Amino acid sequence: MQFTLETTDPKSRARAGRLTTGHGTIETPIFMPVGTAGTVKAVHQRELRQDIGAQIILGNTYHLYLRPGLDTLYKAGGLHQFGGWDGPILTDSGGYQVFSLSDIRKITEEGVKFRSHIDGSKIDFTPEGVMDIQRIIGADIIMAFDECPPYPSDYEYARKSMELTHRWLKRCIERLDSTEPHYGYEQQLFPIVQGSTYSDLRQQSAEFIASQNRAGNAIGGLSVGEPAEEMYRITELVCGILPADKPRYLMGVGTPANILECIALGVDMFDCVMPTRNARNGMLFTTQGIINIRNEKWKQDFSPIDPGLSNYASSFYTKAYLRHLIHSKEMLGAQIASVHNLSFYLWLVGQAREQIKAGTFSAWKERIIPTLMQRL
Amino acid sequence: MQFTLETTDPKSRARAGRLTTGHGTIETPIFMPVGTAGTVKAVHQRELRQDIGAQIILGNTYHLYLRPGLDTLYKAGGLHQFGGWDGPILTDSGGYQVFSLSDIRKITEEGVKFRSHIDGSKIDFTPEGVMDIQRIIGADIIMAFDECPPYPSDYEYARKSMELTHRWLKRCIERLDSTEPHYGYEQQLFPIVQGSTYSDLRQQSAEFIASQNRAGNAIGGLSVGEPAEEMYRITELVCGILPADKPRYLMGVGTPANILECIALGVDMFDCVMPTRNARNGMLFTTQGIINIRNEKWKQDFSPIDPGLSNYASSFYTKAYLRHLIHSKEMLGAQIASVHNLSFYLWLVGQAREQIKAGTFSAWKERIIPTLMQRL
Ligand SMILES: [Zn+2]
Ligand SMILES: [Zn+2]
Repeated sequence: MQFTLETTDPKSRARAGRLTTGHGTIETPIFMPVGTAGTVKAVHQRELRQDIGAQIILGNTYHLYLRPGLDTLYKAGGLHQFGGWDGPILTDSGGYQVFSLSDIRKITEEGVKFRSHIDGSKIDFTPEGVMDIQRIIGADIIMAFDECPPYPSDYEYARKSMELTHRWLKRCIERLDSTEPHYGYEQQLFPIVQGSTYSDLRQQSAEFIASQNRAGNAIGGLSVGEPAEEMYRITELVCGILPADKPRYLMGVGTPANILECIALGVDMFDCVMPTRNARNGMLFTTQGIINIRNEKWKQDFSPIDPGLSNYASSFYTKAYLRHLIHSKEMLGAQIASVHNLSFYLWLVGQAREQIKAGTFSAWKERIIPTLMQRL
Repeated sequence: MQFTLETTDPKSRARAGRLTTGHGTIETPIFMPVGTAGTVKAVHQRELRQDIGAQIILGNTYHLYLRPGLDTLYKAGGLHQFGGWDGPILTDSGGYQVFSLSDIRKITEEGVKFRSHIDGSKIDFTPEGVMDIQRIIGADIIMAFDECPPYPSDYEYARKSMELTHRWLKRCIERLDSTEPHYGYEQQLFPIVQGSTYSDLRQQSAEFIASQNRAGNAIGGLSVGEPAEEMYRITELVCGILPADKPRYLMGVGTPANILECIALGVDMFDCVMPTRNARNGMLFTTQGIINIRNEKWKQDFSPIDPGLSNYASSFYTKAYLRHLIHSKEMLGAQIASVHNLSFYLWLVGQAREQIKAGTFSAWKERIIPTLMQRL
């Protein structure tokens, strides 16, 4: 895996780069659509590639472990083969889902014991086990198994959790370095900076993560309910410590404004369920601003969903038609809105990249954020 | 609207023809995907055209009247414009839905009073009103407003219902002949033969319908629970009376076997919710037979959904992946299965047409039905 920095913005820490994986090259900054259970909800693989322009998608270790299960994934030859997406895949480790989806869980030094949110069966996740699972899933980028503390967390909890995450990281690395990929292409581990909103913990964690010298680094535990200003403060602090020659991945972020602000702070990779989840509820991000398509005002607006985007969903269907579908709870409504919102997110990071390369990113960002975030 | 008979099968009454509308030509025999509320469920318009090969789709007067409503449809310039489907559209009259969806209804000579299944509001459908609505929807083919008696119906009910349907038909024709299309292309009325399973009523109805000399004729009130042999018997009887130089549309039919058998009896046009509704439940029609994709046996079958079909959904995705999606209740499962099943139905009628033109239809039908209807 190779990361090449192409341009750094003169007026911010924004960077344009290229990350090469065994399944192709990713142009950064990039947004990664979330495909939790081996599907980006309501979106065909062909649409991901041709309409949305996705370059890398996410899978979720916990969900894929439950369904379709490791035996099926292994026999298929990994998730790329199973799901028919031959571009790069990143799998998150399941840590976040274990903590958010399961009621009954027990965290020990060894790992986490919890119950499946599907059938209540007992599951035992350890750093080593989660690495083995991600070997079988076959992601190009494997996330470390971490504990993701809620917001707010008190200092002592955040410190102990961070230290546990660091000890687990050593075990993840050891396991990964002593095993081989199953399918012939490389798999690289990204460790995750934790430490909640405490500057000294974040600094300590970022230094520890940086010292592990892996192919890329991630910032976790943000976008969990803290104010945006806190997110930006911690991201800035951490980006200042993580090495400049490795890609930086800010997990679970965020709105269009969040993404542009964090690109300005030096982040290269993003993921978020917002474009797809909000799409299903009729909330659209467009080049003109934010639309709640359920509103009466769109009922007879026969203009394209977003005249600023050229993909099929945004340019072919009208606002009035999409409103009708969402109102009538027709599946096609979620399908159109999902392709549209993801196309918008990929357009957004693509524009950011062009502006960085042109040296105009900072001024553009200040100009465009008010437009993108206004409610139409 | 022009119907040209190209070939008639020497060993059955099967015909190949061409029906020209203001939105293009339909090659018969044809299957028409059902797009009740202005959307063929889970299917993009681009997929209808490019992947499925749909030539004409259905809309439903009752559903479209409720949502998006006539004002919106009229301002959009009709359903073609509103939904982005510029091929031919046929609208059923809403009669069937009025009788199947609404609990509270009152049938009089004047029409039907009932309550919306969405908000309970009072609705009043008359033959004249339903013609006006279909003028506004803008379908190329407009169905007469009929009463569709349940199966079984006693003779007296069936007779009175048929006679009412005939009187309503006269009013439909009068209204349509005294009004103009709104959008500049022609709209043709298809009257509907009723009479339940009673041969003498069906004969009487078919003769009455034929005498109206409209551009095409429909057979209603079948596929409502009667045995297949009854359906075939009535279809054969009615097709023998309806003029050969007009297209014959058998409403709401059916399985692949039903369709081939009824093509052999002289039917040219079909519609049915089965391919899309069954798709959402994981039941697939394939060139090899019927698959319940939920079954364990498909869990690790990494072969294409249907190697006999070349469209994207059937050839790109595997059985194991589709099973995973349907099991996990992921929307993409319904999407893939719907495109697949509709592609299969369009393949089926396309094959039938080729066999008719080659003079080999009857032998082919006998050979293929056991394959298509076997459970894999
Ligand atoms: Zn998010
Ligand atoms: Zn049917």
